Amino acid sequence: MGKLHFTSDYMEGAHPQVLEKLVQTNLESHVGYGEDVYCQQAKQEILDACGLKDGEVFFFVGGTQTNAVVIDSLLHSYQGVITISSGHINTHEAGAIEFTGHKVITLLQHDGKLLAEDLKRYMENYHKDLNKEHTVMPKMVYLSQPTEYGTLYSKQELETIYKICKEYDLYLYIDGARLAYALSSKENDVSLEDLSKLCDAFYIGGTKCGLLFGEAVVLTRKNLIPHFFTSIKQHGALLSKGRLLGIQFHALFEDHLYERIGDSAIEYAMILKEKLHSTGYKMPIDSYTNQIFFLVNKEEMDYFEKYVEFGFMEMVDPDTAMIRFCTSWSTTKDACDQLCTIIENSKK
Amino acid sequence: MGKLHFTSDYMEGAHPQVLEKLVQTNLESHVGYGEDVYCQQAKQEILDACGLKDGEVFFFVGGTQTNAVVIDSLLHSYQGVITISSGHINTHEAGAIEFTGHKVITLLQHDGKLLAEDLKRYMENYHKDLNKEHTVMPKMVYLSQPTEYGTLYSKQELETIYKICKEYDLYLYIDGARLAYALSSKENDVSLEDLSKLCDAFYIGGTKCGLLFGEAVVLTRKNLIPHFFTSIKQHGALLSKGRLLGIQFHALFEDHLYERIGDSAIEYAMILKEKLHSTGYKMPIDSYTNQIFFLVNKEEMDYFEKYVEFGFMEMVDPDTAMIRFCTSWSTTKDACDQLCTIIENSKK
Amino acid sequence: MGKLHFTSDYMEGAHPQVLEKLVQTNLESHVGYGEDVYCQQAKQEILDACGLKDGEVFFFVGGTQTNAVVIDSLLHSYQGVITISSGHINTHEAGAIEFTGHKVITLLQHDGKLLAEDLKRYMENYHKDLNKEHTVMPKMVYLSQPTEYGTLYSKQELETIYKICKEYDLYLYIDGARLAYALSSKENDVSLEDLSKLCDAFYIGGTKCGLLFGEAVVLTRKNLIPHFFTSIKQHGALLSKGRLLGIQFHALFEDHLYERIGDSAIEYAMILKEKLHSTGYKMPIDSYTNQIFFLVNKEEMDYFEKYVEFGFMEMVDPDTAMIRFCTSWSTTKDACDQLCTIIENSKK
Amino acid sequence: MGKLHFTSDYMEGAHPQVLEKLVQTNLESHVGYGEDVYCQQAKQEILDACGLKDGEVFFFVGGTQTNAVVIDSLLHSYQGVITISSGHINTHEAGAIEFTGHKVITLLQHDGKLLAEDLKRYMENYHKDLNKEHTVMPKMVYLSQPTEYGTLYSKQELETIYKICKEYDLYLYIDGARLAYALSSKENDVSLEDLSKLCDAFYIGGTKCGLLFGEAVVLTRKNLIPHFFTSIKQHGALLSKGRLLGIQFHALFEDHLYERIGDSAIEYAMILKEKLHSTGYKMPIDSYTNQIFFLVNKEEMDYFEKYVEFGFMEMVDPDTAMIRFCTSWSTTKDACDQLCTIIENSKK
Repeated sequence: MGKLHFTSDYMEGAHPQVLEKLVQTNLESHVGYGEDVYCQQAKQEILDACGLKDGEVFFFVGGTQTNAVVIDSLLHSYQGVITISSGHINTHEAGAIEFTGHKVITLLQHDGKLLAEDLKRYMENYHKDLNKEHTVMPKMVYLSQPTEYGTLYSKQELETIYKICKEYDLYLYIDGARLAYALSSKENDVSLEDLSKLCDAFYIGGTKCGLLFGEAVVLTRKNLIPHFFTSIKQHGALLSKGRLLGIQFHALFEDHLYERIGDSAIEYAMILKEKLHSTGYKMPIDSYTNQIFFLVNKEEMDYFEKYVEFGFMEMVDPDTAMIRFCTSWSTTKDACDQLCTIIENSKK
Repeated sequence: MGKLHFTSDYMEGAHPQVLEKLVQTNLESHVGYGEDVYCQQAKQEILDACGLKDGEVFFFVGGTQTNAVVIDSLLHSYQGVITISSGHINTHEAGAIEFTGHKVITLLQHDGKLLAEDLKRYMENYHKDLNKEHTVMPKMVYLSQPTEYGTLYSKQELETIYKICKEYDLYLYIDGARLAYALSSKENDVSLEDLSKLCDAFYIGGTKCGLLFGEAVVLTRKNLIPHFFTSIKQHGALLSKGRLLGIQFHALFEDHLYERIGDSAIEYAMILKEKLHSTGYKMPIDSYTNQIFFLVNKEEMDYFEKYVEFGFMEMVDPDTAMIRFCTSWSTTKDACDQLCTIIENSKK
Repeated sequence: MGKLHFTSDYMEGAHPQVLEKLVQTNLESHVGYGEDVYCQQAKQEILDACGLKDGEVFFFVGGTQTNAVVIDSLLHSYQGVITISSGHINTHEAGAIEFTGHKVITLLQHDGKLLAEDLKRYMENYHKDLNKEHTVMPKMVYLSQPTEYGTLYSKQELETIYKICKEYDLYLYIDGARLAYALSSKENDVSLEDLSKLCDAFYIGGTKCGLLFGEAVVLTRKNLIPHFFTSIKQHGALLSKGRLLGIQFHALFEDHLYERIGDSAIEYAMILKEKLHSTGYKMPIDSYTNQIFFLVNKEEMDYFEKYVEFGFMEMVDPDTAMIRFCTSWSTTKDACDQLCTIIENSKK
Repeated sequence: MGKLHFTSDYMEGAHPQVLEKLVQTNLESHVGYGEDVYCQQAKQEILDACGLKDGEVFFFVGGTQTNAVVIDSLLHSYQGVITISSGHINTHEAGAIEFTGHKVITLLQHDGKLLAEDLKRYMENYHKDLNKEHTVMPKMVYLSQPTEYGTLYSKQELETIYKICKEYDLYLYIDGARLAYALSSKENDVSLEDLSKLCDAFYIGGTKCGLLFGEAVVLTRKNLIPHFFTSIKQHGALLSKGRLLGIQFHALFEDHLYERIGDSAIEYAMILKEKLHSTGYKMPIDSYTNQIFFLVNKEEMDYFEKYVEFGFMEMVDPDTAMIRFCTSWSTTKDACDQLCTIIENSKK
């Protein structure tokens, strides 16, 4: 028997309903570059799910690409984007934002989140700075829902942050690479409709949430980015068979699959979290989504490595590592049960 | 009955053998970013097909992305790439090369091809120019096989061009977006093995040649581009589920499907060409691959528009348009026959 | 006795009146970055000379820098600039425009000039192109007054070009590196006031027209480029002792020196031109400014090289070179007379 | 009587010896772009002063420009530069480094300095990171001598840092915008010769140290940056009348003026520091160069504003500001004496 797979949420292909749609439509002939009927359909379904009458949807292949193109297209050359030190654009995108010329301005993270008061203080200081014209002009806030650490912004937190953004003329852009797992979380009080009112742009992650690949950028009002099509092409981010994105997102949104596709992943994650807790593992971050972080010593890590693939995060001290179990739409009850047994046995 | 589809070669999904592999492997769990077993297998199969012992293969999603990342990664900031005026990077990539900071230097095209003597003259003049240090340094030649106009470079032509490149210390990079259709052409005398000896880098087009998406960059020697993985990521061009590219290219190369996938497309294209010729249409370019260009007047264009989707190229004079019929691996004998009848009837 | 100097117009330092002002003010203490009183004064004097009530002036150190910053700041990332093949931004700026991400789109040159009808045709074709969203969007026209070949746009030519620009929503930006020599030319009918009405932005060249260094960008209406100060800084183009530019331009504009500083250069250039003509040299371009181009054979070139430094342009055929005599504000009557004698003797 | 000027060290023009040289040579005719005899002379004098047999010198106009061009030219696209949070490239260059595509990676500052152990830890973690290929590759360390806070790296500190750089294959690049004030400091034990052995590249600041403008980049070995001339041009940083830089640096280096030009500035700064200390002002940073930072309350700030122009740094708490007195080569003994009296009276 092979190892269990709890490394990440992009280890499998597509949800069966998604794959089926790709197979059914495979030999149909469609115009390229997203002008096809499936793209049109999927875009409307997404706008409907978001309650947006005046929004726009654009499809991308992957997350780093999405962030780089959206951020570069919204900002002028001399403007930068504010995020937290653990923000994906600041860490694991190989400098893709700076590649397009923009500074990533970092504030401290708190449980993976940006604090509204930190943002406010930063903007106050910026505007007080007599030399501000010699510095990068902050023009956007980037955050993730759920965060890199599996935590969630509450509706009230987003309202506060967005209010500050409006006060200081900043765009708010939200990375939803794992958004389905936020929507399925019991702790979540931010629906797609809420999100659409609480930022200027966000993306609905597909790659980690049931698709072969694909991310849907939602601009919450039309013409936020003029000539975005050409800009996408210029960044090398335009998929010629755009239908592939339309078909996949259509599968996720025609009957609201997206809003429940994360349910089992969350259920199993909560089971694992409870089991880790009851077995005696410490969890420095209290995650309510599909990523569970916990501390192990060397022996425990060796033990787990025999049975399960997991994510290594970092050494928190010379003897202690933080590791991650990550569930997804493809995680089975059986695998979850087996992992529970493995966890139990780890401390025996 | 709907119209016939001869607009382009990216209007359908994937070749059945490719799709089948994606379906079979869908729920397998694999490591991301191209580190999986299918990618390793496909890369080796491609190197074998190219007869390369010391090459490297990298997978990309689309053509413009591939060109932008390869060119930017091979060139220093102050270096430019030479192509012809009709080169894809000079026309339909929305400035993706300039976006990465490099000038596209254009020479005149002749039937879609770069002439060796033009290249030689350009380089001679560059080196004679007393102000050359004030100009962009040419460091790469970009060409396409087959070309944008369906024509082919002969082995001898490529040998001559590559010799000039070596003399002047230029990289030769070949865009093979439609390479399968070159390989299947009766006129072609450049095999994959030949190509691998006649340039520094090229890409094997998948999107137009049987895949849902995907292009395989072949570097004809190792370490031509150090840290290419990070560079790909930085350009937003790294597919997280890299397996999708490995699986698809594995389907094309495990039993040499790629080298015959264009056969029927070429057969039908030659039938259409002959039919157009015998019916009395003028063809300004003598294509031997899957794109057939011919001249029509307004009435003829209107006639064709009733029955078939085709590519509009340009008005060559106020009364005459150049249009294109394009076949692909998915074109059926039946569709070809129908189009022949339509052509015949057009002049009646 | 050394050789005569007719190579270019940037071989000497500053006009005595300019240098004197720098010496007088040297130990004064002034705020940096162009906020000083001399910059304010010079800017107002320039606006007055241009008859602009609502314009803005920004100072730069050199021409390539000026072009790169102005063009990059006016254009969005996906937009390009139209010029002619011989345009300075297309040839001798080492790809500085592409470095900032923008394509330089080239039309054919005619005596160093852009033809209005070529521009119109290009824009018509762009708008007819069904794939235009896959191409670089033209958004600016760049031209030089006088041109690289010493020729001049007439008022009517500029009016026609600017009308086309407005029709197609293009900025018109004019490079005036040698503008003083246009203003002093007998053939010129475009005053500073005219120019200010016939484009969106232009620059008044200082480096070649009497300053140690410096170019003054005139934006013909306020806020054409928001946050231009920060953009200039970001491009590394902000001079910390900005006063140096203010003081120098103040010297040129406080009593309209700029409008007559080129007078002697033009007078001598016309004498040389007449002498070359009467001695039997062919001039492929009929220049009315300070650059005189003419054809020589190998012997004639060798002869001239003994007595005078000149500019080598290009071999027009294997036996014939085009060379240039260039005068400036610093050319003396004596040097002009000596060169006339040398020219006369060259054919004896 | 006007206010005293202690705001910064770039408020005046050039040192009289420098200006004199510019005046003397003004009407000489010289080839452009730094190919002239003065540039050659000055470069050799600088190499001699640095004890470099195999180095190279390049001249620039200003500091931000210098940093941006050197860093961009030394790094590959996917590489970043490490500095401290207060590093000039991270704060007051308006994102000029990111504009060229490179991430500025920040470590904590300690009295304006980078700690060797912080650097070592960062590099260790980078190399341990399993995902390091998804992150920006650190390839350079940037630091300033003296620092933004007037502090100095000792010879031993630089040796330790450079050793770590070599261990991890990082370039060490040192910003010497105020280098003359380091060289004149009693606390300094790093000579120009030492510096030339302890890094890969540094620049000798001219703008703040006696020139109208100008910075001299020293590459401590030849060909560290191939085709640097073209790269400088491409960045818009090539001065056409390069002689101006050659002449000015020649004035500074022909008789070692540079190594004593900061002497009086340091002498006066130390007098002011002692006076501030004895009068009871707190100085959070112990500077031994020409910038003296101290804390004032609102009343004290208002008092000083009546008599002297100074630099405002930041509010350290709602009631306390850190301000700066900055001396320069142009500061007079008389001004220093007057300021001492003003300081004394401030607490009466």
